[in-house]
Parts: sequence; C-alpha cells; structure tokens
Amino acid sequence: MAVKRIGLQTIAFGAPPHIIAASTIVGPREGEGPLAESFDTVTKTDLYGEKTPEKAEYRLLEEACQSALTKAKLPAEAVQYYLGGDLLNQIVTSSFVARQLQIPYLGLYAACATIGEGLALGAMIIDGGFAEKVLVGAASHYHTAERQFRYPVELNIQHRGTNQTTVTGAGAAILANTGQGPRVTQATLGKVVDYGLKDANDLGSAMAPAAADTLVRHFQDTGTTPGDYDLILTGDLARMGSKMLHKLLQDAGYVLGGKHQDAGQLIFSPQQKAGAGGSGAGCIASVLFGHILKEMYQGRYHKILVVPTGALFSPLTCQQGESIPCIAHALVIEEG
Amino acid sequence: MAVKRIGLQTIAFGAPPHIIAASTIVGPREGEGPLAESFDTVTKTDLYGEKTPEKAEYRLLEEACQSALTKAKLPAEAVQYYLGGDLLNQIVTSSFVARQLQIPYLGLYAACATIGEGLALGAMIIDGGFAEKVLVGAASHYHTAERQFRYPVELNIQHRGTNQTTVTGAGAAILANTGQGPRVTQATLGKVVDYGLKDANDLGSAMAPAAADTLVRHFQDTGTTPGDYDLILTGDLARMGSKMLHKLLQDAGYVLGGKHQDAGQLIFSPQQKAGAGGSGAGCIASVLFGHILKEMYQGRYHKILVVPTGALFSPLTCQQGESIPCIAHALVIEEG
Repeated sequence: MAVKRIGLQTIAFGAPPHIIAASTIVGPREGEGPLAESFDTVTKTDLYGEKTPEKAEYRLLEEACQSALTKAKLPAEAVQYYLGGDLLNQIVTSSFVARQLQIPYLGLYAACATIGEGLALGAMIIDGGFAEKVLVGAASHYHTAERQFRYPVELNIQHRGTNQTTVTGAGAAILANTGQGPRVTQATLGKVVDYGLKDANDLGSAMAPAAADTLVRHFQDTGTTPGDYDLILTGDLARMGSKMLHKLLQDAGYVLGGKHQDAGQLIFSPQQKAGAGGSGAGCIASVLFGHILKEMYQGRYHKILVVPTGALFSPLTCQQGESIPCIAHALVIEEG
Repeated sequence: MAVKRIGLQTIAFGAPPHIIAASTIVGPREGEGPLAESFDTVTKTDLYGEKTPEKAEYRLLEEACQSALTKAKLPAEAVQYYLGGDLLNQIVTSSFVARQLQIPYLGLYAACATIGEGLALGAMIIDGGFAEKVLVGAASHYHTAERQFRYPVELNIQHRGTNQTTVTGAGAAILANTGQGPRVTQATLGKVVDYGLKDANDLGSAMAPAAADTLVRHFQDTGTTPGDYDLILTGDLARMGSKMLHKLLQDAGYVLGGKHQDAGQLIFSPQQKAGAGGSGAGCIASVLFGHILKEMYQGRYHKILVVPTGALFSPLTCQQGESIPCIAHALVIEEG
C-alpha cells in the first residue's frame, strides 16, 4: 500500500472521512457569550443538577455524544470506536462516558488539543479500513479544572490577565466513510515543543510555539500558505498566545493576518471578564463542532485549517520546577 | 477499501506489522524476581539517581524508547509516531519523553492496558499506510503510583493481600511495515466493563470481567478457542483477578487451563511479598517486551494472545463513591 504521507509530518487521507454529525453542549457562561446561538444545548447551571462538577462534566460529554448519535440517526452499536479525552486525572470523564456508551474505547490525552488527536486518529482508523464510523468527543469544566490544576473556585482566587477561563462544555462528532458533511482531508501531527516557559497562569504563551511549529511544518509539507485557507482556527491560545503566534509565524515568513481566529477568543466576549479567553478540551471541541461547522454548512468556509493546542503539564511537574511541554495538531477540513 | 473487520469487535491487519525491536528496563525489586534475566536493564535503586521518583519514571521510559531505537538501528527521525502512556496525572511521563524524542506524539491512556491500546493503534497506523515505523511505550513506578493513587511509601501503610504492587519499569517497541520479528496480526478492542466493584485495593478482581468480556468477544469473532493459542497472557490481573477470569470464562464455555499466564504473577515470586502480584502500565510492557518476546524468538511460542487490562478510575472518583470502570484489549501476536 502506498504510504499516504506528504513531506515530513503530514498525512493525506485516500478517502477522507466525513463529519456526518456533531453536537455541542456548554455551561451558562458560554451561553452568554458571542457564540450562544451556535450550541445545541446551554445548561442553566454549572452543576447541571448534579452533586459534583465532575459528575456534571461526565454528563455534558455523555449528552454531546448521545446527541451526535441521535443526529446521525445511529444506535451506539453502529459505531465501532469511541475516541475520547478530557483534562481530569486519568481522563475519568471520558472513561465514565465510555462505560455508558458501550462502544469499544480508545482513551486519549493531549490536554486542550485532545479533539485534534481524536479527529486525526479517527480519520486514520476509517481511511485505513478498520471502521466505518467513529465517535470522537472531548469535554472540560471550569470548576473541575480550577480545583484540579489551580484552586477551587470557592476560594475566589483573583486571576491574572493572562489566565484563561476553562470552558464548561463538550463537543462530539461522528466520522464516517460514507455520508454527507465536511471531510477531514489532511492531518499534521505535532511534536512536543517547550520554550522553557513555566507560568501555568499563561498557557497561551506556552502553547504558541507548538502551534507555530506545527503550522510551519504543515505549510512546508503541503506547499500551502495561510492564503490557501478560508480560516485558520487555533484553540486555545487566547489573547496572549495568539499575539505570539502571529509574531512567530511572521518570523518564519508567513502572515496570518485576518485569516486567523482562536477558539478561546471567540467563545467569550471581553465584557465577560474571562481573562485572556477560553481554554480547555471542551473549548475548541464546542467551537469547532458548533459555530465553525455551521459556518461551513452555510458555505462561508470551504477549506479550513484547525489547530488544537495543548499544554501537557500537571500541577506536580510545575511544583517540581519543570517547564511546560506543549503540542499542536493541524487538520484540514474541507466542505463535503 | 475492504473493511478489515471480523465479527463485532475484531480487526485483522492486511499486512501485519512486525515488532522489529523492543527494550525493557526495571527497578531493583523486579530485578530480583523470576524474570530478572529477561530485562535489558535493571536499575540499582528506585530513584535511579534522580531527585524524585517522577523524574526516575521519565528516565526509565526514555531509556526504554532510546534503547529500542538503538536496537533497531534507527534515528528518532526515522519513526513517524510515538504512542505513549503511563499512570501519572495528565500522562506527564510520556509527554516529557515525547519532548526528548522529538517524534510526533499521540498520548494515550488506558491505565495498565495502555500498551495494548498503543500496539493496536500503532498497527492500524502502519497497516493503514500512514507510517512505516511507530514507537510504542509505557511505564510505571511503584513510588509515583503509590503516592498518587494511595499513600506515599514513606508512610509505610500496611497492604492487604489483594493489593497489587505497581511495577517500576518501562517497555518500548518499534512496529514497522517491513523487517524481522513477531507480527501483530489481529486486535480486539474492548468496551468498558464495570461490575460495580469499588475496592481500589483489589483491582485484579475489578478488571477480570473486562478481560473475560474481551476474550469471549475475541473467541466468538475469530471462531477460535484457548487451544488455538500457545499462550494467553493477561496483564495485570494478578492472583485474585486470574482466579476470577478462569471462573468467568468457564461459565462462558471456555477452559483457559495451563494456557493462561498473567504478567502480574510472572514478574514477582511469592517470596517477594508483592501482594497479589504486579501491576502498572510498565508491568505487561516489560514482561511482554522482555520475557515473552524472547520466548517467541526462541521458538517456544508461535501464536499468542495478549490481553492488557486497565482499571480506569481515579482517586477522586473513588472518593465520590463511583465504582471502577475497567477495560481490556486483546492482540494476536504471531511469529514473524
């Protein structure tokens, strides 16, 4: 079989799988933001009627997955693999959802870039002939992330301007070898990039070099430039990281200009006081599978480059003085 | 392209990839066990000269990966993907190793079954035509696991007889589309199984039903029985879980008998007082890529069924009263 590779790090799918259905669910703060209309469900409270925010997070991801199946008119048995991930220790959110779904499960971790890893692997599994349909999902929750990575929200710790706000939300999509919908045509999987930054209160800046590395690699591998895409969507560099990304790409000879948007900047308005913007595995998942896919259906975008980014640290590694390793994966999504 | 599926959950690789090289490294306790001679390196101390056990764990996995590359006479650039995972929060061990390796990275989490998920996905990536070579690795460390999941070893908490001892060790292997070595010919990826057990001090019993579910599914999908394999290697059910697995399979009409071995029972002798046996992502990785592959090279085994098992809980989910979701993946490995 011909190796489906372009350049050093990019693969091109022979029969690019379609995103035949997608669903999103977010919390109340996200529901007050500029993308409110694009989400399938907005919960009235953060706890969503559950006893703990962790249980609320499981439920967000489970409902996004079930809703994607319903939209595709598929029972769970028609899907061969569920690829899921989240930010909680031992990715328990995804695993508890896998217990409910009863679909063979592949647990992933790439922090906020998890949905990128899932879409790339899901597309490989389908294009490789190992499945007809794959479900990909990711979630995060402001309260669970704050208490695990920083301080419980009840402590009311004052945030810095560089802090990002973890999105309470989930997104899920079904990839299939036949059907209607945008197609995942190429993927550039990233290496870990670490510029030595150690500030867990400014993850956007830490992740920007990883996004730049993967983008430059993608442009070089494919012989494209930012001008070849209707949109370059990163997630979640937010305000600080996006600024740095533009500078790093300029130094490498690429001008992003107005082509670039960041999921972390799209999801909250400046009036919402969400620091530098949104973050979390549920941020790009809910923005991509909500707002952006809807824009593609309406014909606004024909070919986009999606670059989920992740900061692969843990509170323990920060305490031990380690810097923050980061990663970014790039996916080309074209109208189906 | 023909879908490479057999039955409900099993895939058969069209051009099964070879395990062209593998390497293992373990700590001093494992080096005093029955498999001592099979490991490439035995460290003299648990800390391996590092300041923290976490740093020792990174180094174990990094050395296993580098040694597998050296054995295969390959520079890191010749490998297209590194698939890694471990037990630490946010799988930081694997991510720090990915930073050193500078190979595009796919982070995985399936607890002690991580190497099973990695081998299955790695084989799909190669057989699907997306890579020529893939590196798969997993690690665990007794001290890091104890202090994260239970109590720091310094507290000297008395263990129960059902407790398993997390293996300090790592294993890594290189899968390739050409070359010499045993081949991964089939994979049955598991669903999450949860019988409602909540005792984090008896994970073998919690995981046994997942192993049974995947094994029965594999036998039904492929029309095989235990008699068709020279060895069925689970990891890590240890003493309690293995007993339960035999019973569950007997109820389903399959007699495992002498065909079954468990990595957690192989790695420590009863005299070592390691509770019910070994566990951890590094247990089956070091036993499979050390002892078992060597037995295959010597012609003792021609066709084996490897079933890594994982308990997908976190300390937080236990504290919140949740039961323990478990998973098992099955891989057929045949002489190359």
